[in-house]
Amino acid sequence: MTQDDLARFSINQETVKQLTLPQLADACGESGVRQVGLWRAPVQAYGAEAAARLMRDAGLAVTSLCRGGFLTAPDPAARRRALDDNRAAVEEAATLGTSTLVLVCGGLPQGSRDLAGARERIADALAELAPYAGELGVRLAIEPLHPMFASDRCVVSTLGQALDLAERFPSEQVGVVVDTYHVWWDDRAPEGIARAGAGGRLAAFQLADWVTPLPEGVLLGRGQLGDGAVDLRRFRALVDAAGYGGPIEVEIFNPGLWSRDGAEVLAETVERYVRHVLPERDAAGHGKT
Amino acid sequence: MTQDDLARFSINQETVKQLTLPQLADACGESGVRQVGLWRAPVQAYGAEAAARLMRDAGLAVTSLCRGGFLTAPDPAARRRALDDNRAAVEEAATLGTSTLVLVCGGLPQGSRDLAGARERIADALAELAPYAGELGVRLAIEPLHPMFASDRCVVSTLGQALDLAERFPSEQVGVVVDTYHVWWDDRAPEGIARAGAGGRLAAFQLADWVTPLPEGVLLGRGQLGDGAVDLRRFRALVDAAGYGGPIEVEIFNPGLWSRDGAEVLAETVERYVRHVLPERDAAGHGKT
Repeated sequence: MTQDDLARFSINQETVKQLTLPQLADACGESGVRQVGLWRAPVQAYGAEAAARLMRDAGLAVTSLCRGGFLTAPDPAARRRALDDNRAAVEEAATLGTSTLVLVCGGLPQGSRDLAGARERIADALAELAPYAGELGVRLAIEPLHPMFASDRCVVSTLGQALDLAERFPSEQVGVVVDTYHVWWDDRAPEGIARAGAGGRLAAFQLADWVTPLPEGVLLGRGQLGDGAVDLRRFRALVDAAGYGGPIEVEIFNPGLWSRDGAEVLAETVERYVRHVLPERDAAGHGKT
Repeated sequence: MTQDDLARFSINQETVKQLTLPQLADACGESGVRQVGLWRAPVQAYGAEAAARLMRDAGLAVTSLCRGGFLTAPDPAARRRALDDNRAAVEEAATLGTSTLVLVCGGLPQGSRDLAGARERIADALAELAPYAGELGVRLAIEPLHPMFASDRCVVSTLGQALDLAERFPSEQVGVVVDTYHVWWDDRAPEGIARAGAGGRLAAFQLADWVTPLPEGVLLGRGQLGDGAVDLRRFRALVDAAGYGGPIEVEIFNPGLWSRDGAEVLAETVERYVRHVLPERDAAGHGKT
């Protein structure tokens, strides 16, 4: 491994959520990691200003903040609360110095079966939020979630749907997230990635592997890189070919990883990244795609 | 409810798998149900000829046989076994007098990450099986499974992919299954249904509802009609508009239903079907769409 190998690597803090923010900063220093993706709850608990200072002092760039969203409520009061909360998330992202706020857009409201209506409410909310985000130099990044989350977390299930939404707004205000865990199964993902690249919409690229059997509730079943069915290197090559040169963020929700020493998990994740994501090397160390 | 309400209703035996085949025939008689979808294992245990006679004597038509498929193995011996088994399934379907053999096409082979390659092996296998099925008056019905099954059960995840495969073969030999549980989330499902109808590819229409949280392994999490997120009536209207006038088969895998009296579950399923699937009626009893 060379220093250059980690130039684009970013660790999403949820992958090693057993670490406090100061512990995360230390572990990154030990592993040569220079970028992190953060979550709102631990940032709020630590204080956004203090977290920003901690990261800056450790030489760490913040590549994304997770997450805004949950924009599908039809009730006016709930909708107003969601918009307020998303404006706060934009402000936190700006404080942390990241230009990417990841959105998990929300599932079907209780008792509803109207996917198309829920998607339109997301568009309405983006119309209110996007200009404010743009003013603060933050881009709203729509993350399509795997279709198994369509009813309870996110009615945006494919990269194509995410782009249909994003493209209604200026590309500097609304983009999309490509997360291998959510899109790996989709034979239309490559054309979506190309479309996102051509339109300047690729706001973030995240990695997790797909492993079975899925656990109850399916949220915490993500696999360590290389343990599952996803051709991670191919997806990295696809986003590269689409003109994306930004951070490659590893985001794994897995109780098995959380039960171990966080610094050790981070070192393992770095090793897996080099082995399964970066271009393969020939014996002489020359890179291939 | 009128006699006519059940003209297209079919109960897939897995929905009430606590019932033996004779018990199923009796329960159908009591509920006014005149069509059933059967599974290979119970049919084989009872004897295909005997099962065919039992259904015929009870006045029950067999609308489908589940299931052939699992055609993605690259190993020649495993592949030959799969083809032999699928030919046997075609023969069992013919014996039962159904023209529809449902295919669950198979997941990724152990250690593979090549979805496209697995899909091509399915096409190769269909090329061998389809003419034989056609000779026996049986159509191979490709069922796209929800993307959460892409690695371990079926690399065909959308109706669009299923049609891409089916359309390589004559429409009387290879069709597709539309199962609401698998396609409900997909905003491209309506155009897929129209395409399937226009091409004469709609071999079967199956119903189950989507409920969360999903159980561990996710296979047995299907919901009773009306309990979940799927707009079942809309999907019935979509297949009708595509020119499909065939059976509407209810197929629910749910341990909660299996733990109850089978005849009671069948009666409940009939009632849910009338309420959530058939056209709504106005106060005078006139049908609307």
